[in-house]
Amino acid sequence: MDRKINVTIYNENFHESTIPQLKTVYPESIHGALRSFLEKDSDIGTLRIATLEDHEEIMTQEVMDDTDVLIWWGHAKHPDVSDEVVDRCAKRVLEGMGLIALHSAHASKLFQKLLGTETYWVRWREAGEKVRLWNLAPNHPITQGIGETFVVPHDETYGEPFGIPNPDELIFLSWYQGGEVFRSGCTWHRGEGKIFYLQDGHETFPIYYQPEIQKIITNAVKWACPIKRACKIDRGGPNTPALETYELEDHDFLLLDAKDHPAFQK
Amino acid sequence: MDRKINVTIYNENFHESTIPQLKTVYPESIHGALRSFLEKDSDIGTLRIATLEDHEEIMTQEVMDDTDVLIWWGHAKHPDVSDEVVDRCAKRVLEGMGLIALHSAHASKLFQKLLGTETYWVRWREAGEKVRLWNLAPNHPITQGIGETFVVPHDETYGEPFGIPNPDELIFLSWYQGGEVFRSGCTWHRGEGKIFYLQDGHETFPIYYQPEIQKIITNAVKWACPIKRACKIDRGGPNTPALETYELEDHDFLLLDAKDHPAFQK
Amino acid sequence: MDRKINVTIYNENFHESTIPQLKTVYPESIHGALRSFLEKDSDIGTLRIATLEDHEEIMTQEVMDDTDVLIWWGHAKHPDVSDEVVDRCAKRVLEGMGLIALHSAHASKLFQKLLGTETYWVRWREAGEKVRLWNLAPNHPITQGIGETFVVPHDETYGEPFGIPNPDELIFLSWYQGGEVFRSGCTWHRGEGKIFYLQDGHETFPIYYQPEIQKIITNAVKWACPIKRACKIDRGGPNTPALETYELEDHDFLLLDAKDHPAFQK
Amino acid sequence: MDRKINVTIYNENFHESTIPQLKTVYPESIHGALRSFLEKDSDIGTLRIATLEDHEEIMTQEVMDDTDVLIWWGHAKHPDVSDEVVDRCAKRVLEGMGLIALHSAHASKLFQKLLGTETYWVRWREAGEKVRLWNLAPNHPITQGIGETFVVPHDETYGEPFGIPNPDELIFLSWYQGGEVFRSGCTWHRGEGKIFYLQDGHETFPIYYQPEIQKIITNAVKWACPIKRACKIDRGGPNTPALETYELEDHDFLLLDAKDHPAFQK
Repeated sequence: MDRKINVTIYNENFHESTIPQLKTVYPESIHGALRSFLEKDSDIGTLRIATLEDHEEIMTQEVMDDTDVLIWWGHAKHPDVSDEVVDRCAKRVLEGMGLIALHSAHASKLFQKLLGTETYWVRWREAGEKVRLWNLAPNHPITQGIGETFVVPHDETYGEPFGIPNPDELIFLSWYQGGEVFRSGCTWHRGEGKIFYLQDGHETFPIYYQPEIQKIITNAVKWACPIKRACKIDRGGPNTPALETYELEDHDFLLLDAKDHPAFQK
Repeated sequence: MDRKINVTIYNENFHESTIPQLKTVYPESIHGALRSFLEKDSDIGTLRIATLEDHEEIMTQEVMDDTDVLIWWGHAKHPDVSDEVVDRCAKRVLEGMGLIALHSAHASKLFQKLLGTETYWVRWREAGEKVRLWNLAPNHPITQGIGETFVVPHDETYGEPFGIPNPDELIFLSWYQGGEVFRSGCTWHRGEGKIFYLQDGHETFPIYYQPEIQKIITNAVKWACPIKRACKIDRGGPNTPALETYELEDHDFLLLDAKDHPAFQK
Repeated sequence: MDRKINVTIYNENFHESTIPQLKTVYPESIHGALRSFLEKDSDIGTLRIATLEDHEEIMTQEVMDDTDVLIWWGHAKHPDVSDEVVDRCAKRVLEGMGLIALHSAHASKLFQKLLGTETYWVRWREAGEKVRLWNLAPNHPITQGIGETFVVPHDETYGEPFGIPNPDELIFLSWYQGGEVFRSGCTWHRGEGKIFYLQDGHETFPIYYQPEIQKIITNAVKWACPIKRACKIDRGGPNTPALETYELEDHDFLLLDAKDHPAFQK
Repeated sequence: MDRKINVTIYNENFHESTIPQLKTVYPESIHGALRSFLEKDSDIGTLRIATLEDHEEIMTQEVMDDTDVLIWWGHAKHPDVSDEVVDRCAKRVLEGMGLIALHSAHASKLFQKLLGTETYWVRWREAGEKVRLWNLAPNHPITQGIGETFVVPHDETYGEPFGIPNPDELIFLSWYQGGEVFRSGCTWHRGEGKIFYLQDGHETFPIYYQPEIQKIITNAVKWACPIKRACKIDRGGPNTPALETYELEDHDFLLLDAKDHPAFQK
C-alpha cells in the first residue's frame, strides 16, 4: 500500500453521554477507545470521528470520498441516523470503501442496506457472560497475532439464528457461557467493497481495551482498505451503443423495432 | 408439497400500455404471457396479478401473507413503486416467500433492497442480439427439462460486470453475439426466502412465449416456494432473560451493572 | 419424486464387533440403528447395508448405480476401505448420488476425496459432554420438524477449526459444555451430487436412537436424493469438433497449426 | 510482506520437447516463458523449475517447505506425475502454500485432489478461436492493471459446464467466438491455502507472452502468497484431554464408559 489508510469512525455516543456509570468503562466514549489504538498504527492516515450529534456535518460527500475504511458503532439510535448519510456511505462501500461493523451495528441502517436483510434477527441477553471466540481462519489477514481461541470475560450475548446472508468467510465463532453460539466474525463483499462484522463490544464492558479485540480491528481496517480509494463507478451502467459492439462486424442483425421480429411476420 | 403454490405477479405494464407496437409482442401484456403458462400448471394455486397502476390496492399485507412466490417484472418505472409495498414484500421474502426477479427487475427497489447492492451496475445494449444460455446445473430443480444450451433468438444484451453479491448458485451463463457474457441465472438465499434472477425478457421480444423460458420460470416457482407459507419471525429478536439461559445453573456471574466489573475495582 | 429412494448404508462395524459393552448401546450395530428408522419411511425404497467386512462384495458398480443416497459411518478403519469402492462412490456423487457423512466420516477417504481437504483437522475429546445444536436454517428441508435448538445429552466433542471448505449452507452449529463450538451440520455440492455432514454420533452413545437425529437423517436423505438417479456424465468431456461450433459460420479462423499464428510470421 | 516470495513452477514440458513447431511458440518451453516475467519482479525470491522429467528430484519436501506459491502447467502427462509429489503439494496447500493452476491443470491430479472433483468435465475444442475475458472483480488484487475486458487472440476453447465447486470468487468470465462461455478465472480456499485457476494458455499459442496474462499471473502469485510460509498444522488433530477442557471445572460429567450412560441404567 503506497498511501496511508484514512479511517472514519461513526460512534452513536448516546449511552456514554447519558449513563454516568459508563464513564468508568469508556471515559472517552467508544470512539475514543477505538481512536486510542488506531492512531498509534503507522499505516493509519487521517482519522475522523463522527457521532450521532454531528454526523451530518462530518460525514459529507467530500469526507467519505477521502475515507478508505468506515468503522460503525450504533445501538439505540439507529433510526435517528440520516438516510442521506447512510445512502452516501452505502454507495461508497459499493465503490470500494471498507466497512467494519461493530456489535449492534448489525441492526444499523447501513449494515442492513448493504446486507439486504433486517438483521435484528438474533437472540440476545445482557448478562455479562463469558464469551470464548474460536479462530477459524489462522492464515487470514484479520486473525494475524490472534491464537486459536481467546476469551472476552464479559459481554452481551448474541445467539443464532443470525439473519445474515451466508458470509463469504467465517472468521470467528463464539461460544457463550449460557449455551448460545454465534457467527461473531464474518466477511462479505458488496460491490467493490469489503465488509467485516465483529460481534464483540457491548458498551457496559471495556471490550475495546482488550488487546485481542484491538488487534482484530486494526487488522480488519488494513484488510478492508481498497487498493484504490475509489472506483468511481458510473452507476447508471454503461450503455454500449448498438453500432459499437466488440464482436460484430455485420450489423444487419439489429432489430430495434419489434415489428421486424420474425415471430410477427406470420 | 401438500398445498397449491400461490403466485403473485407484479408487472409494471408501462411499455405495453404506451407503445402500440408492443401489442404485437405481448397482446395481453407481459403479465398475461406469464399467467398463460403458469395457470396451466396443476401445482399453481391462486394466481394474482398487480401492475404499477393497482399494485398498492392488490399487494396488501393480506395478499402477500397468502403468497408463496412473487414474480417481478419492472423497468422504466421502478421509482414509482410504493416504498410501503416494497418493504412489505422484502419482509415476506425474509420470512420465506420466494422471489423470481425477471430481466430489468435487477434494478427494482425490491431486488436491490434484498441483494444489498445498487445493481444498475451492468453493461447493456438494445440491439436484439442472439443470446446463448449455458446450463451450469443440470441436476438443479430449476433446469429440469432444459438441455445443456439453448438460444434466445433476440434479446436486450446485458454484460458483466454485474454488481451482484456472489450468487449462492450459478445456474445459467449467457453468451451474446456482440461479445458480452452475463450471469443470467442466479440464486440467493435471504433470511428464509429464496431468490432467483433470470436475465431474459426484454419487452420488445416474445421471450416469455419461448418454451424453455416458460419451463425455467415454472420450475423456479416450484423451487422458490417455501415449505411453510410463512415463518412469521418476530423480527425484534427474542431476548432470552438473563435468569432463563439454557446452560447456566448458577447466576452469580451476572454483571448487569458495569461498576461491578473487575476491571473497575482496581 | 416419482420413485422410491434407494439408500445404501456403509457402516464400518468395527467397534460394535470388538467392544462388548457397545452391545448395550447399539445391539444391532450402528447400521441396524440407522436401518430401524429409515425402513419405516414410505419414501425409502431398497435399503442396502455394507460393512468393512463385506463392502467390496456389496458396493459393486451395479449397486451404486442403483443407489440414490449413500450414508457413511466410519472411524478407526478408514485406511482399510477399498480404494476402488471409494473411487466408485466418489464418481457416483459427482454424477448426482447424495452422500450423508456421519460423525467421524469426516476423516474417511470418500469425504476427504470429495471435499478436497484432509479433514482430520479438528479438535476432539471423548468426554461425553453435553452438546447443544442450534438450527440456523429453519426453512431448509433438512431441519423440518426440528426446533430452534436441541440437546444431545452426551457425545464426543469436536472443535473448530474444522478443515473444511466453506460450506454451501451452514445448517447446524454446536455448543459443547467444555467450551468448543463446531459447524456440525453442513452441505456442499460436488459435481451433480449433494453432500450433508452431521457431526453427531459417537459409537459409545445411543445418538442414532434420538428422535431429532433420526428426523435430521431422514430429511437429509430426501434432500440429497437426486432428481434423476444418475447423470451418467461422460467424464472425458465432450470435444466439440472445430467444424461444428455453435456460433461460427466462417471457419477461416482455424489455426490448428501454430505456425500459422501471426506472431510467428514476423 | 517482509520476505521475498519463493515460487516453484511445475511444467510438464512434454509438448515443447516433442513437437518441433512449438519451438517457435515457446523457444524456452512454457516454464521459460513464465520465468521470464516472474524473475523481473522484485517481490519474487527463489524461483525453482521442475518438469515431468525431474519433478521427483526437484519437488522434495525441503523445497516445497521453502515454497510460497506453486504454479502448475500440465496436460498430456497428468497420470505420470508422482503421487508422492502430489500428496506433498496438496498437504502444503492445506498448510498455506498458494497454488496457481494454469489451463489444463484443471485435470491434474493436484487440482482434482484439492477441489474434490474430476474436472475433466469441460467442453473443449482446439480451433484457435478468439477469447474475450471479462473482469468481474476490478478491485481484486489479481485484476490490478487489467481493464474491464481484453482479448486473447487465439486459444483452445473450454466451455461450461465446468465441473468445479462453486468458486469463492469469480474473477474472469470468458466469451469464445464459437459460442461457449467459461469461468476462466476462479479462486478457492482449501485449508489455509489459496488457489487461483486461469484457463488461458494452450501450448500452441504464445499466450504467456501476452502482457495481460503476465500481469494476472504475477498478481495472482502475490495474492496467493501466505502471510506465513507454513502453518505446520499437526494434521492428526489436537486431542484435548478430558480433564483439560477450557470451560469445565467439575468433571463428574465424564462418561468415558458407555455403561454409565443413563440410557443403560433402566
